Amino acid sequence: MAVTYRPSHADATYDAKYGLRNYQGGGRSSARETIGRVAAGAIAKKILRQVTGAEVIGYVKRIQDIEGTVDPASVTLDQVESNIVRCPDAEAAVRMIDRVEAIRDQGDSIGGVVECVARGVPKGLGMPVFDKLEADLAKGVMSLPASKGFELGSGFAGTLLTGSQHNDEFYTDESGEIRTRTNRSGGTQGGIANGEPIIIRVAFKPTATIRKAQNTVTQTGAETVLAAKGRHDPCVLPRAVPMVEAMVALVLCDHLLRHHGQCELF
Amino acid sequence: MAVTYRPSHADATYDAKYGLRNYQGGGRSSARETIGRVAAGAIAKKILRQVTGAEVIGYVKRIQDIEGTVDPASVTLDQVESNIVRCPDAEAAVRMIDRVEAIRDQGDSIGGVVECVARGVPKGLGMPVFDKLEADLAKGVMSLPASKGFELGSGFAGTLLTGSQHNDEFYTDESGEIRTRTNRSGGTQGGIANGEPIIIRVAFKPTATIRKAQNTVTQTGAETVLAAKGRHDPCVLPRAVPMVEAMVALVLCDHLLRHHGQCELF
Amino acid sequence: MAVTYRPSHADATYDAKYGLRNYQGGGRSSARETIGRVAAGAIAKKILRQVTGAEVIGYVKRIQDIEGTVDPASVTLDQVESNIVRCPDAEAAVRMIDRVEAIRDQGDSIGGVVECVARGVPKGLGMPVFDKLEADLAKGVMSLPASKGFELGSGFAGTLLTGSQHNDEFYTDESGEIRTRTNRSGGTQGGIANGEPIIIRVAFKPTATIRKAQNTVTQTGAETVLAAKGRHDPCVLPRAVPMVEAMVALVLCDHLLRHHGQCELF
Amino acid sequence: MAVTYRPSHADATYDAKYGLRNYQGGGRSSARETIGRVAAGAIAKKILRQVTGAEVIGYVKRIQDIEGTVDPASVTLDQVESNIVRCPDAEAAVRMIDRVEAIRDQGDSIGGVVECVARGVPKGLGMPVFDKLEADLAKGVMSLPASKGFELGSGFAGTLLTGSQHNDEFYTDESGEIRTRTNRSGGTQGGIANGEPIIIRVAFKPTATIRKAQNTVTQTGAETVLAAKGRHDPCVLPRAVPMVEAMVALVLCDHLLRHHGQCELF
Repeated sequence: MAVTYRPSHADATYDAKYGLRNYQGGGRSSARETIGRVAAGAIAKKILRQVTGAEVIGYVKRIQDIEGTVDPASVTLDQVESNIVRCPDAEAAVRMIDRVEAIRDQGDSIGGVVECVARGVPKGLGMPVFDKLEADLAKGVMSLPASKGFELGSGFAGTLLTGSQHNDEFYTDESGEIRTRTNRSGGTQGGIANGEPIIIRVAFKPTATIRKAQNTVTQTGAETVLAAKGRHDPCVLPRAVPMVEAMVALVLCDHLLRHHGQCELF
Repeated sequence: MAVTYRPSHADATYDAKYGLRNYQGGGRSSARETIGRVAAGAIAKKILRQVTGAEVIGYVKRIQDIEGTVDPASVTLDQVESNIVRCPDAEAAVRMIDRVEAIRDQGDSIGGVVECVARGVPKGLGMPVFDKLEADLAKGVMSLPASKGFELGSGFAGTLLTGSQHNDEFYTDESGEIRTRTNRSGGTQGGIANGEPIIIRVAFKPTATIRKAQNTVTQTGAETVLAAKGRHDPCVLPRAVPMVEAMVALVLCDHLLRHHGQCELF
Repeated sequence: MAVTYRPSHADATYDAKYGLRNYQGGGRSSARETIGRVAAGAIAKKILRQVTGAEVIGYVKRIQDIEGTVDPASVTLDQVESNIVRCPDAEAAVRMIDRVEAIRDQGDSIGGVVECVARGVPKGLGMPVFDKLEADLAKGVMSLPASKGFELGSGFAGTLLTGSQHNDEFYTDESGEIRTRTNRSGGTQGGIANGEPIIIRVAFKPTATIRKAQNTVTQTGAETVLAAKGRHDPCVLPRAVPMVEAMVALVLCDHLLRHHGQCELF
Repeated sequence: MAVTYRPSHADATYDAKYGLRNYQGGGRSSARETIGRVAAGAIAKKILRQVTGAEVIGYVKRIQDIEGTVDPASVTLDQVESNIVRCPDAEAAVRMIDRVEAIRDQGDSIGGVVECVARGVPKGLGMPVFDKLEADLAKGVMSLPASKGFELGSGFAGTLLTGSQHNDEFYTDESGEIRTRTNRSGGTQGGIANGEPIIIRVAFKPTATIRKAQNTVTQTGAETVLAAKGRHDPCVLPRAVPMVEAMVALVLCDHLLRHHGQCELF
């Protein structure tokens, strides 16, 4: 790897931009970089909880084609942490673990989807045009290594419905709060939180570095074959959960400060 | 609509945040807001073309379940503009138009997916951590009205593959350039452009405002039924194409300036 | 002026940077540009007054060597607006007006100093390192056309004193508030407001465009002589007062929002 | 100092804003904070020198009322570093050192003025409205501890001249370059560098912490007397020189990158 580019790894583009790279561990392209985000996210979660009561919970929703059944409205941290793939659906978790082990034994890797819910986020957080809440959430999680897609609420599947099927009807609950009966919007409308749970999903591709042999080139362009050695995650999904949580918490906390400064001054 | 909230429309959240709203046309929540982006995007496209030769082309990839077959590597602006739904697959376009007309007659609405390709983007544009190219693209398009999802390259579908299936093998082309044989990465690796076409997709939900009657509440929380009157788009997809193109061009142009300032100074 | 550079005017540097300029009125180099700042400043002043009771008052402190005697602790807007040079010292104002008229008749120009006080600014506004309150105030007013210097509190004159002469002793006032007996600090310490009046001064150079003949060059570098025609202010000081007030109000209002968001959330 | 506020020191305002402070060494209010700026400034200077040939040299211009005679056009780093007060005028430096020692023996402190010149800065660096070069320079140095004033070129003294005396006449030099015969502008016009040396001055107040007894209050507002113990600089001026140089170099380097990205793309 000192002279060879790993297919679909950032060391080639980093080298193209800066003329250097750290092939040992990936340098700034390594997911180790997110440690600072996760640390800051822990503080952000604490502020959100103390000031608003909001909580942010992420979990593995799907690994390759194995999808867990999870209710974002009620999922708990204990359920997430009850197994090593961080999937709250215990039965799916077993199958996910089996799959990851089988893939690891093949010297290959797999990806999947992390889902994250933020419950109790106050109505009004966000901005109507430039820094829409969903736009900042998208930027936050799409800055995580290996992320390839972002969805809010109904996401891509929602595009198959008609408006009359998709729209979230309003009603007034027993405490007089205006709420929506469904939550296909995923907790925001037009960039601003509507008080319902914020639900996002992030697609993570299979890890680029694998032990299987692949065709590639060296830094000077000579064609070669690479089979990575050493310890490489066959599936980043369980480790991606705290990263996604951290980015969601940081974005929400930033918007809490901005909303408080801008709208609750008077 | 003067006193009633439209389901899944931003006028309720705007009202919750600011204590006022413009129900006539939607005010700042209207997609009319994007006119400035489209105008600026036209200049960004011109800069990209003149300085780098890059071109940005968006098109309707799917309306509800009708998907066009389009090759991002070769699609042309003329093909996009050859029909009113802006789908370069002429046969699919006919079916899309029929569907939109049928939905309009029902007083309902539908959504879909816009795909956008940027060809000729120089290697190196982007940033390795804070302002990753895909993160800024995601923020750009997720700030467009009605957007619910973002994908780069293989996106969510790519999570079903293994690493050995998904990785883009490198090779050296006849001109000595290091390239990839496939483009599941969608043109970036680790936040930085790799010189291959940048390919993104954006999910747009069905338009919120429909003529069909829906249960909702008034500003004071009283339950009521709303059936919108006036002219409302049954499908925003064709109009979303120039918006997506504009945001992609603006993000790429910003990164071109930053890359030139940072990396081509010496 | 269509082909000739005015000495000490920005049209030469604007041309050097952008390859074009607007010699008629100065284009973006004209002080007309500040109209948006003054309009926004009016809103900022209103927010400051409503939320904190603070008020921002600027006035002409000196024109050339004629200095007014003004007490920043008690000066009123009526006093400022009682004469056309906006100097609250009526006697000095008469001499200033005479001086400006004499200079105008000579086809020449003069400069001076605007002082601005913000009274009632809450303790705590500001930041300890990156966006110090005095740093943002300095940037704000040094972005005004023709400004050449900025002082806070004792400013340059304070450098002639010893620490024991210069330090502002603390005491506790009758209402239990910790205050300072003197205000050489000018209302901030270490980037953060201390609750005393914020007092700044801005040096404005004599207007560049004058009717007197001056040696200069054309755009192509040919030496020539220029004597400006048309209406040109012989002294910008009275017109600079609202600009300085606006920038001070905008900076304080920004910091009010930031402080409220950051420190008054809990 | 654990319970008592030092007059004119930032520990009181820091406490007012955040509810805590580090009285030992001053915490974030200490000038030690600038170590990161000086380190970054060293890199900025290197970039400026390599890319543009520009050099940034700061020096002590005045301590209390003792002013050195220094020619910014020719001053060298060796001259600055030839004595411990960093004043290139050797005769004045001797008197400054005597003064500082006498003041130190009295348990008091003094301030003064640092001047800084940037020679060889390319024409065009800067911005016409929002981030004027002189505005960013002012913000940069006014964010340094103990700074109370900023001047560019003729500064406050220039306000005593008429326009015909103050304006810098243009001429074409032997190499065909448009230059100015004088440099009262201090190297910028309207926010943009004109190619002449950029000359700024920064006022630093006498150090707040002194051994002489001063009236003050405790954190709870009780009146007391404080006489600081331990090592405290009687004059920060020599140590402020590298800080000013660093901020000037950082601001110029930022503008070099921006100018290159924005104006030299085509």
